[in-house]
Amino acid sequence: MRVLILGGDGYLGWPTALRLSAHGHEITVVDNFSRRRWHNEQSTDSLTPIASLGDRIDSWRATSGHELHSLVGDVEDGEFLDRVVAETLPEAIVHYGEQPSAPYSMISRRHAVKTQYTNVIGTLNLLFAMRDHVPNAHLVKLGTMGEYGTPNIDIEEGYLEVEHKGRCDTLPYPKQPGSLYHLSKVHDSHNIHFATRVWGLRATDLNQGVVYGVETAETRDQQPLLTRFDYDEIFGTALNRFCVQAVIGHPLTVYGAGSQTRGFLNIRDTLQCVELAIDNPAQLGEFRVFNQFTEQFTIRELAELVQRAARELGYQVDIESFPNPRVEAEEHYYNAANTKLKDLGLQPHLLGEELIQSMLGIVNRYQHRVVHRAIAPRTRWKPGELGGELVAAAPAPTAT
Amino acid sequence: MRVLILGGDGYLGWPTALRLSAHGHEITVVDNFSRRRWHNEQSTDSLTPIASLGDRIDSWRATSGHELHSLVGDVEDGEFLDRVVAETLPEAIVHYGEQPSAPYSMISRRHAVKTQYTNVIGTLNLLFAMRDHVPNAHLVKLGTMGEYGTPNIDIEEGYLEVEHKGRCDTLPYPKQPGSLYHLSKVHDSHNIHFATRVWGLRATDLNQGVVYGVETAETRDQQPLLTRFDYDEIFGTALNRFCVQAVIGHPLTVYGAGSQTRGFLNIRDTLQCVELAIDNPAQLGEFRVFNQFTEQFTIRELAELVQRAARELGYQVDIESFPNPRVEAEEHYYNAANTKLKDLGLQPHLLGEELIQSMLGIVNRYQHRVVHRAIAPRTRWKPGELGGELVAAAPAPTAT
Repeated sequence: MRVLILGGDGYLGWPTALRLSAHGHEITVVDNFSRRRWHNEQSTDSLTPIASLGDRIDSWRATSGHELHSLVGDVEDGEFLDRVVAETLPEAIVHYGEQPSAPYSMISRRHAVKTQYTNVIGTLNLLFAMRDHVPNAHLVKLGTMGEYGTPNIDIEEGYLEVEHKGRCDTLPYPKQPGSLYHLSKVHDSHNIHFATRVWGLRATDLNQGVVYGVETAETRDQQPLLTRFDYDEIFGTALNRFCVQAVIGHPLTVYGAGSQTRGFLNIRDTLQCVELAIDNPAQLGEFRVFNQFTEQFTIRELAELVQRAARELGYQVDIESFPNPRVEAEEHYYNAANTKLKDLGLQPHLLGEELIQSMLGIVNRYQHRVVHRAIAPRTRWKPGELGGELVAAAPAPTAT
Repeated sequence: MRVLILGGDGYLGWPTALRLSAHGHEITVVDNFSRRRWHNEQSTDSLTPIASLGDRIDSWRATSGHELHSLVGDVEDGEFLDRVVAETLPEAIVHYGEQPSAPYSMISRRHAVKTQYTNVIGTLNLLFAMRDHVPNAHLVKLGTMGEYGTPNIDIEEGYLEVEHKGRCDTLPYPKQPGSLYHLSKVHDSHNIHFATRVWGLRATDLNQGVVYGVETAETRDQQPLLTRFDYDEIFGTALNRFCVQAVIGHPLTVYGAGSQTRGFLNIRDTLQCVELAIDNPAQLGEFRVFNQFTEQFTIRELAELVQRAARELGYQVDIESFPNPRVEAEEHYYNAANTKLKDLGLQPHLLGEELIQSMLGIVNRYQHRVVHRAIAPRTRWKPGELGGELVAAAPAPTAT
């Protein structure tokens, strides 16, 4: 199948490209290297060294015999994206090409605007290009579980059956996201739903939980093929950050009470899910939503799991509660459905001490690359609180 | 009270400025004249002649003795809007400064992107400016009833009480809007809700029905003060367009079956509602939603009402069903709540033949200004249908 991967140089985009290429699909990767640029802005970097896209592609050709095509440009550039779609005529499009960080979107007005502009306008450009050139193609869009927020009822997969004053309907699940980044994904979902209703496009929205891990079947032990591993307060996800903290002797930074519950999944399962979605496309006119996570944990449970696994390897690990830089409910009900991907055949890789210990091994190999300054949370959801100082374009550090 | 009116040169913004000024508020109007520019783009214009903003302000001073302040700039320009809010320190902000047309947003990718960029980024800039300079100010934002779409259950005012699997919550009402313009308002609502939850701002979202009429207490018989009256397929609202069609002998253009039901209100009631919202502000941290319309009609009922009223004045009026350029349900359930503004004291001006006949009188006075070419629907929601030709940046006419 001809597959276009937007954001194919990123944490998940790159291993997805390798997986789909390994399985015989014809892959074109589009990226503008904004993740690399945003790290430059923050003076941070991936823990794992990241080769240039050209070197990555050369290495994949040498390893697998498969060719990856690549095109460099911005999804915000409608003319560019239109040409990409018209010339590659994809049968499936995997859209990872967005600003993916909640803290980044909360640094300042400029960062918020950049996030919603890139994500909402990029997706809008893509929908028009699909309408005009490949109306039968299947859009596989990365959403997030964070779109739902923490309602006091069960979270269903995209839709809610409502009975109200004696009448019934199935309606889009109401969204109460927790950051301006998560909001951009909510906006995307609404725009994509419209394109399926009005233009008859087909789309699967993968509302993904928090991803952890770094190795996949294709990148294992192949340094130029390894994907990125972010642990900083802006781009790092919780478990990855905890693993780095455990290795370098930094207390695990639990925000607030740590009783916030979220869905999590292994990076290998992200690839499985995307592949399942591609192999089982939505119908024309259908906006299908899958909740893409395998397990629910509280942040504190996760920290304690890392602590146990790391202590067995001889690391000294403390857990420290940080004043929560986010505005979020710490005590809340959370029960989210995630059966649709399992029904399609997802075989979850569940989280255990062994997996964490293998992650700790990789972190240990690259620990000389850790930028210590970048770990403690500095970006506050509500500037002026937690320390009395305003956080504007350049947030000031509060604790180390 | 110090009131900032964004989009204060527009159809509703200008008469709102006069009303609030007449009632003793200190008004600053912000506009970038984009409505005037968009008409230039389309070679159309308001039926009523529109004086320059400077002449309007001079005329208001001469008539009322009140001063209006004005600032020219774009809401998309975050630095500009930040300075405006910092320097005027408004206690209330009425935000009309958006691209307000569904057909405009559906002309092409460029128009869709422009609409979502102007509306979503403009509002986002405003929320940051409020957070940083006037966190206690009250945002009165113009939304639209079109955000809800046509669900098969009653439409409530912004929120829905849900009972699901034995648990309860009050959640944002699910949205299924019918155009990329209406979607921009949905995105705004989500962003504003976030700002009230996380930053503690206060906001009232006025989900307005279709507005008709032109004269208000302050603009009556004062030509330089008169507000605009749009009747073209892009910016015209249904009843205004029908009145122009009746006067010039053009069949009333009912789209499809005409059984689409919508909420409507008189322009005088828009002013009343905005004033009621300002006089009864939301609480800090509250995102309050009012459905702002006074009556529900089907499009066909509206056309028949205009037909009856116009025939009494001696006009020959036919009603013609046009192939619906929009993708929308024509037969659907529709029952929307609108009690909250009435509870605050709204005294509706209901639609009757007399009001329509007074509108026909005004249209008659300016009928030499009608641009006939601009009346028939050309912009299609789904290009390629209804005539087999693609509608791209420059839509082609289909019927006259």
